[in-house]
Amino acid sequence: MTHQGPVVLVTRRERFNAAHKMWNPKWSEERNVEVYGKCANPNWHGHNYQLFVTVKGPINPSTGYCVDLKDLSKLVNERVIDQLDHRNLNLDVPFMNGRLASSENLVVAIWEQLDGPIGQELGVKLHGLKLYESENNMVEYFGE
Amino acid sequence: MTHQGPVVLVTRRERFNAAHKMWNPKWSEERNVEVYGKCANPNWHGHNYQLFVTVKGPINPSTGYCVDLKDLSKLVNERVIDQLDHRNLNLDVPFMNGRLASSENLVVAIWEQLDGPIGQELGVKLHGLKLYESENNMVEYFGE
Amino acid sequence: MTHQGPVVLVTRRERFNAAHKMWNPKWSEERNVEVYGKCANPNWHGHNYQLFVTVKGPINPSTGYCVDLKDLSKLVNERVIDQLDHRNLNLDVPFMNGRLASSENLVVAIWEQLDGPIGQELGVKLHGLKLYESENNMVEYFGE
Amino acid sequence: MTHQGPVVLVTRRERFNAAHKMWNPKWSEERNVEVYGKCANPNWHGHNYQLFVTVKGPINPSTGYCVDLKDLSKLVNERVIDQLDHRNLNLDVPFMNGRLASSENLVVAIWEQLDGPIGQELGVKLHGLKLYESENNMVEYFGE
Amino acid sequence: MTHQGPVVLVTRRERFNAAHKMWNPKWSEERNVEVYGKCANPNWHGHNYQLFVTVKGPINPSTGYCVDLKDLSKLVNERVIDQLDHRNLNLDVPFMNGRLASSENLVVAIWEQLDGPIGQELGVKLHGLKLYESENNMVEYFGE
Amino acid sequence: MTHQGPVVLVTRRERFNAAHKMWNPKWSEERNVEVYGKCANPNWHGHNYQLFVTVKGPINPSTGYCVDLKDLSKLVNERVIDQLDHRNLNLDVPFMNGRLASSENLVVAIWEQLDGPIGQELGVKLHGLKLYESENNMVEYFGE
Repeated sequence: MTHQGPVVLVTRRERFNAAHKMWNPKWSEERNVEVYGKCANPNWHGHNYQLFVTVKGPINPSTGYCVDLKDLSKLVNERVIDQLDHRNLNLDVPFMNGRLASSENLVVAIWEQLDGPIGQELGVKLHGLKLYESENNMVEYFGE
Repeated sequence: MTHQGPVVLVTRRERFNAAHKMWNPKWSEERNVEVYGKCANPNWHGHNYQLFVTVKGPINPSTGYCVDLKDLSKLVNERVIDQLDHRNLNLDVPFMNGRLASSENLVVAIWEQLDGPIGQELGVKLHGLKLYESENNMVEYFGE
Repeated sequence: MTHQGPVVLVTRRERFNAAHKMWNPKWSEERNVEVYGKCANPNWHGHNYQLFVTVKGPINPSTGYCVDLKDLSKLVNERVIDQLDHRNLNLDVPFMNGRLASSENLVVAIWEQLDGPIGQELGVKLHGLKLYESENNMVEYFGE
Repeated sequence: MTHQGPVVLVTRRERFNAAHKMWNPKWSEERNVEVYGKCANPNWHGHNYQLFVTVKGPINPSTGYCVDLKDLSKLVNERVIDQLDHRNLNLDVPFMNGRLASSENLVVAIWEQLDGPIGQELGVKLHGLKLYESENNMVEYFGE
Repeated sequence: MTHQGPVVLVTRRERFNAAHKMWNPKWSEERNVEVYGKCANPNWHGHNYQLFVTVKGPINPSTGYCVDLKDLSKLVNERVIDQLDHRNLNLDVPFMNGRLASSENLVVAIWEQLDGPIGQELGVKLHGLKLYESENNMVEYFGE
Repeated sequence: MTHQGPVVLVTRRERFNAAHKMWNPKWSEERNVEVYGKCANPNWHGHNYQLFVTVKGPINPSTGYCVDLKDLSKLVNERVIDQLDHRNLNLDVPFMNGRLASSENLVVAIWEQLDGPIGQELGVKLHGLKLYESENNMVEYFGE
């Protein structure tokens, strides 16, 4: 294998506004309220989520890009943002079916949606995801 | 009347996470979707709202404060944030009953909740409210 | 005239990335460098500008909106952002012709582009504009 | 008087890091703790303050500027930031002598330091000051 | 050992406002001023610190959480924020005794306070700490 | 080798405002526009770039610092910011000669400027660079 030159990480931010509640359908209402507190409000609450998608790869010497961020943004919007934005994470999102609507489960589900397509369509490796639920709470996933 | 010295504005930020949808119950589903687009998603969406409450008054020479921000924060939390945080604006909030769940109607309703108590309990005048629905969208109300 | 109910201010943020230089063509190069310093770099520099457009009006009781922010965003993009984004303020922007490319002149020129259409097409009043050139420098214009 | 053309507001952000405590020397320690809570910690606490200085004036047709922000920044640094940055507001700042070290008193004191010099040296009017003590707490003063 | 499913990182932001000065008691005043400049102001200065606590672990299939952020926040507040907020880092904080009050030493001391309890009480691993002293200056520690 | 105690990462933010365009001189104008879209505007566009420089090293027990951030800031300004701020990345920056003016190439070029001097002059290791072109787009380089 020949040397490819410097390897960089490139990150694109996307946003979506969604409703959810923390609710384990196997539990009683009392148990849900006990564990999740106000996050278990039956009529939902919601967030302005921020998703940071980081890919890794060499710099294409013809373009100067690791990946064209317009292409990455388009792929992320088609594969995940369009399913999540102005939706209910518990009810409206096929790839969240059967999963509790936590940020932890959501970031893993987003990884599953993006990992294959980013490699196949853009030729770079998905390196990591950051998902901010609020200015104080954030989760990350690196595919481990 | 004696001179009171300088008059300042003091602002406190509070935050709440809520679900809502834009939906006029007098309209058909088609009309709602036509007017509100994805904001009319039947299963709700949500936001991290930020509320900036600004009061106006002279500086108390004994304390150096216009108002103690701990007191203002407590009042705002009891009167509005506790009713709004982790709630559904369309279903769970008594002071939004009968109002469409827009930021415009919400900021006016919050004013109505706060205006009297801030004057009576804290002795300063409510000057204005800013309500951020997202980093791009914001409404203000000055009681006019 | 009947009472219209509460009057609110609604603000939409839009962004554009542009090149410019501060350069008075009536002056010598020496004079330009003396007055403008590094802002007069002949080969340009640039900014991520943020524009906050604030309109004022009553709340439409049918929609709950003062103005639909999708409509305001569309109008602002068509009238100004599309002319400014990824452009050179000194060379590429017809409505900046004959004006020095300062934020002060730019915010006034943006006002001239938006004031009529916002009133005529959206039925609300343009109240004010904020233009951030950087996190430290900002100008505002209220049509005075 | 001839027409001067558009009048704009121009704002410069400056920052300073300072120690202070809320402490009224006329009161007992008990009274200070009762009123100010943890803000009365005898050994001080501190903040990263942000100051936004807004001036108002016509646009100079020769420069395109209302005021050169380098000049405004220099004046604000010399008159106030150099006295405040890495200082103790209760002990080290001559223009705070005899005033309780609240943000309310500080913003008024800063106005007194800036109002004359900005008019005399820069030829524009000081319009307003915003002083952020934290992301949640802010005061404003408009010289009233 | 059985497979635990995806491993995620979860981060909680907490804030505290503190006074400090950079001062080595073994040095002369001249030496302190020479090394630390204005950070050695005898009467202290202060900051709004932001602490980001990142833990790592599998997702609990019953809750959907890696860790309940209410629990993490409570632990971090009890173990470190309550000792630091509205305090003097040089004088008031037992776990900083004998350490120079730099962000580097502080982030290591915070690690020592949190590492054991987070593992024992919450069952996840402390992965890293970020401590912002200002918008321009930040330190990180990963327990190495 | 003796034990050095904890190893920390220290990060300094610096900012610069620059013009650039994406343009491969080996390609036709049509090809450039096809690949780069509006980023290929012949008359340039620009950004407020933010650079985060992270170094790694033990804590000096005499100073409490890993590195004095005043020294790091001075070095980064002299070596890179002074060459980049208020410049054109395609025309004015010697260390970008012969490179396409992408953030990917820029972050690698900045690494080359900083890596040696940071080790030799400051005695710490350059760990990583983050370069924000906008709030949505960011690249990182770790010297691989």
